Amino acid sequence: MAGVERECEVVVVGAGFAGLAAARDLTAAGVDVVVVEARDRVGGRSWSVETPAGFGIDRGGQWIGPTQHHLQALADELGAETFPTYIAGEAVEWRQGTRHTYTGLIPTSDHHAAAEGVEAILDLDLTALEVPLERPWAAADASALDAQTLATWFDTHLEAPGARSILDVAVKAVFGAEPAELSFLFTLFYCHAGGGLTNLVRTTGGAQERRFVGGSQQLARGLADRLGHRVVTGTPVTAIAYGTDRVVVSGRRQDEPWRIVARRAIVAMPPSISARLDWSPPLPGVRDQLSMRMPMGSVTKVHAIYERPFWRDEGLNGQLVSDDGALRSTFDDSPVDGSHGAIVGFIAGNECREFERLGPAARGKAVLSELERAFGPAAGRPVELVEQHWPAEEYTRGGPVAISVPGALTGFGDALREPVGAVHWAGTETATEWCGYLDGALSSGTRAAAEVLLALGYRGPGDEGSGGVT
Amino acid sequence: MAGVERECEVVVVGAGFAGLAAARDLTAAGVDVVVVEARDRVGGRSWSVETPAGFGIDRGGQWIGPTQHHLQALADELGAETFPTYIAGEAVEWRQGTRHTYTGLIPTSDHHAAAEGVEAILDLDLTALEVPLERPWAAADASALDAQTLATWFDTHLEAPGARSILDVAVKAVFGAEPAELSFLFTLFYCHAGGGLTNLVRTTGGAQERRFVGGSQQLARGLADRLGHRVVTGTPVTAIAYGTDRVVVSGRRQDEPWRIVARRAIVAMPPSISARLDWSPPLPGVRDQLSMRMPMGSVTKVHAIYERPFWRDEGLNGQLVSDDGALRSTFDDSPVDGSHGAIVGFIAGNECREFERLGPAARGKAVLSELERAFGPAAGRPVELVEQHWPAEEYTRGGPVAISVPGALTGFGDALREPVGAVHWAGTETATEWCGYLDGALSSGTRAAAEVLLALGYRGPGDEGSGGVT
Repeated sequence: MAGVERECEVVVVGAGFAGLAAARDLTAAGVDVVVVEARDRVGGRSWSVETPAGFGIDRGGQWIGPTQHHLQALADELGAETFPTYIAGEAVEWRQGTRHTYTGLIPTSDHHAAAEGVEAILDLDLTALEVPLERPWAAADASALDAQTLATWFDTHLEAPGARSILDVAVKAVFGAEPAELSFLFTLFYCHAGGGLTNLVRTTGGAQERRFVGGSQQLARGLADRLGHRVVTGTPVTAIAYGTDRVVVSGRRQDEPWRIVARRAIVAMPPSISARLDWSPPLPGVRDQLSMRMPMGSVTKVHAIYERPFWRDEGLNGQLVSDDGALRSTFDDSPVDGSHGAIVGFIAGNECREFERLGPAARGKAVLSELERAFGPAAGRPVELVEQHWPAEEYTRGGPVAISVPGALTGFGDALREPVGAVHWAGTETATEWCGYLDGALSSGTRAAAEVLLALGYRGPGDEGSGGVT
Repeated sequence: MAGVERECEVVVVGAGFAGLAAARDLTAAGVDVVVVEARDRVGGRSWSVETPAGFGIDRGGQWIGPTQHHLQALADELGAETFPTYIAGEAVEWRQGTRHTYTGLIPTSDHHAAAEGVEAILDLDLTALEVPLERPWAAADASALDAQTLATWFDTHLEAPGARSILDVAVKAVFGAEPAELSFLFTLFYCHAGGGLTNLVRTTGGAQERRFVGGSQQLARGLADRLGHRVVTGTPVTAIAYGTDRVVVSGRRQDEPWRIVARRAIVAMPPSISARLDWSPPLPGVRDQLSMRMPMGSVTKVHAIYERPFWRDEGLNGQLVSDDGALRSTFDDSPVDGSHGAIVGFIAGNECREFERLGPAARGKAVLSELERAFGPAAGRPVELVEQHWPAEEYTRGGPVAISVPGALTGFGDALREPVGAVHWAGTETATEWCGYLDGALSSGTRAAAEVLLALGYRGPGDEGSGGVT
C-alpha cells in the first residue's frame, strides 16, 4: 500500500478479534471496509506460533469457556475444534516453602484460609452483580467503590494471611495486576462481565475450560481470510485526522506515505495505545485522560515443553498455585493427543516487573527451579522454554487487558465507547460481557459495527450479518 | 530545520523549564546542545499571555514560594521581579449553600471540621517525612501505603464531613485530581517534596506566596534567549531511535523530514506524553508501563478580569474555598499595581471533567454565577473571562502534574529516572524536591544534565555551571 491514497466507507484500525469482527459485520451489510494492522499478522492478543523446536503454542489468549457465545459461534462457523483443558488428578500448592497437593478450585492446605477465600470470592461476586455492565459508574455507591483499590477491600474482608495469598494469585492471573492497582469498582465490573470471579479462575465450567486444537489465532486468520484483500498487515497507523463525517487514517510504509480516506473509522486498540497516535484535532480531554487511566496489565507467559506430560503419571494435572517466586500459577498445556507435554505459566503483576529486570539467563533459571519444586526433577529439564513478555510487545505493551485505576470509571467512564466525531471505538476493553477476553473483543467489534451502520444509514446488520450480532 | 540532518552532542526534547535548565547546564560545561520543542513557544506548563483585551495572565504555573531555591536563583539571575500574592482581609467560604468569611489557612465556619482538617494535614505531613524522596518505594510499609488511595486514608482519618470537604478542595487544587485517584504513598512523597501539604496550600510562607511581575514564562524566555539558536521551537519530535551511545531524534516539519543525531538525549516531557513517541527499539516494558500509570491531572484555570479589584474594598482577599460547583478555589490575581482586578480560579478533578462536557456557554455561565455568589454582583460582570483547559492542550494533555496511581511507585518507581540506553529523563515529575512545580522542573534538568556530563566524561558542571547545581 506504499505511496497510495485509498478511499473506502469505513476504515478499521487493528486486526485483532475486535477489528476483524467489526469488519466482518460491516462487510456482511455491504459496506466497503479496509482493515489496517501494524503487526505482520492478524489476531492481536491471540498469537499462535510454532516454537523453534516445532511445538505449537499460544503466546496470548488461548481458552474458551461457557457463556462465551461470540467466540463459540465463530469457532463453530470456522469449524475450529476445541478440547478440554487437562484437569485429571491433583493440583500443586506451594505455600510458605512447602509443597502440598489438592483438588478443586481453591488450595486447601490451610483450611481456614481456603474457607475465608471462598467466602470472599462469593461476597465479591454477589456485590459485582449490583454493578451495571453498561454503566458501572451508575452503580449505587459507585464513587466509594471506585475510590478504593481491591487491596483495600481485601484488607477489610480477609483476616487469614493465607486467604489473601490465595486471592492475590487469582487476581494476578486474571488481571496481570496487583490488587493494589485495581479500582474496586472496576474489579466488580470485570468479574460481573465474566460471570463472576469464580468463573474467571475456573477451568471446568469457567474461562479456562477448553482450548483450540491448533491455537486460538486460527479464528482471526479465518476471519481475515474471508475479508481477503480488505485486510492490510504490516502497516502501522501513525495519524488520524477526523471530522464528523470524514476521517483520514495515515502512516508510512517503507518510508512512503499512505492514507485511507473514509466516512467512519473504528479504532480497535487498547485505549492507552490508541492515544499514542497523532490525532488531529487532538482527542477531547476526557477521552485522552481516560486513556491515561487504563494502563495495560503486566504479564509474561511461559511455556515449558517436555517430551511427555510426565506429571500426569504421578496423578498431577499440571496446575500450580504458589505464594512465592515468579510463577504463581500454571496449567497443563499439552496438545489434545498428549504427544508431548507442556506447562503454561503466568508471571504477573509485580513478579512480571521484577522478572523483566532479571535478564534472560536468571529468568530461565528461576522458572526452571520453580517448576522443579512443584512437579519434580523432570520439570527442570524441558525440551524448550519459551517466554512471551507482553509489556515488551510493541503494539500492545502489556496484557492480558487494560485495567481501570481508581477514579477512572466514575471520572471518565462515559468516554470509553462514546464516538469522537467520525471515530468509533472497539476492543475488548470496551466490552460489557467478557471484557478482557477474546469473546469480549468479538462483541465489541459487533457493537462498534452496529453503531457505524446506524450512523451511515444502513439497515441493522442483524438481517444479513454472519452471526454474533446481538 | 526542514529537510536537515544535524549533529550535536546532546539533544534535549522539550523546552519547558526542565529542558532549558538541562541545556543551560550542558552549555555552561561546553557541550554542544540542541533543544527541540513541539510548541511555538518555550516554557511548557508556564505560559504567560496577553488576553484579547490586553491583560497579562499566566495560563499555567505562576507562583514562587520559600525553599524554591532553583526558581529563586533563576529569577535573581534574570532580574525577574516578584511581588506577594494579595492576602489582606478575609477569604470566602461557600459551604452547604451558605456564604461565610474567614481568615487564615482553613475555612472555619464548621469549627469541628476545621480542627479535624488541620489535624489530618499535620498527621499527613508527619507521615510524609518518613518517605524517602529519592526512593519513595523504600519507605517502611511502602507496599501498604501504595496499595491504598488518599480517599481511603481520609475515610479512616476523618469523621466530620466538613473536614473531608476542606481536604478535598486542597487536594484538587494541588494535584488536579480527586483523592480517589491518588496513591497514598505518592501523596506522601509529593507533600514531603514540597515541604508538606501545609506548604503546598499556603499563600504566605507557602507555594502561592509570590508572583512574577510580567508572568513566570519570562524565566523560560530568559533561558532560551541565552541559548539562542540552540533552541528550535515549532518542531514536534515524533520518533527517537536509541542505542547505548547514540540517539537519533526525528520528526517532520512542513512535511519535510528532519533528524538530529547526538550522543545523548534528555527527554523533558511528562512520562505519559514521552511514551507516545515512536521509540526504536521500543521502550523497556517497565518504563512504558510506568508511563501508563502516571496520568496527567485534570485542571482548568479560569481568569476573570475586572476594571478594579473591587472585592478589596469590602475587605476580601479574593480567595474562595467552595464545597460545590465548578470553581472550588480562587485567588486574587490582580497585577502588582492594582491597575485592574483579576481573580484566578481552579476547576479540578471531577469538576474539570464535567466542565469540559458542559460546552463553552454553560461553562461561562457557571463560573460567573459562582463568582457572583462569592464576591457579589460585580463579580458576575467581568471585562473578560479566559479559560485554559489543560487536558485539551495538545502537548501536555493535563495539569498541573502527572500523578502516580496506586501500585505505580512500588511496582515501577525505579524506572522513573533510570536512563534507557543513551536517553535520560527530566521533567518536574522526576524531581525529588518540589515535584510538580517549576522549581522541580529546573532541578530535574540540572540532575539530568549532571548524569549526561558524567556519562560523556565531562567534569562535573558545578565548577563552571551558571548556578542551580546541587
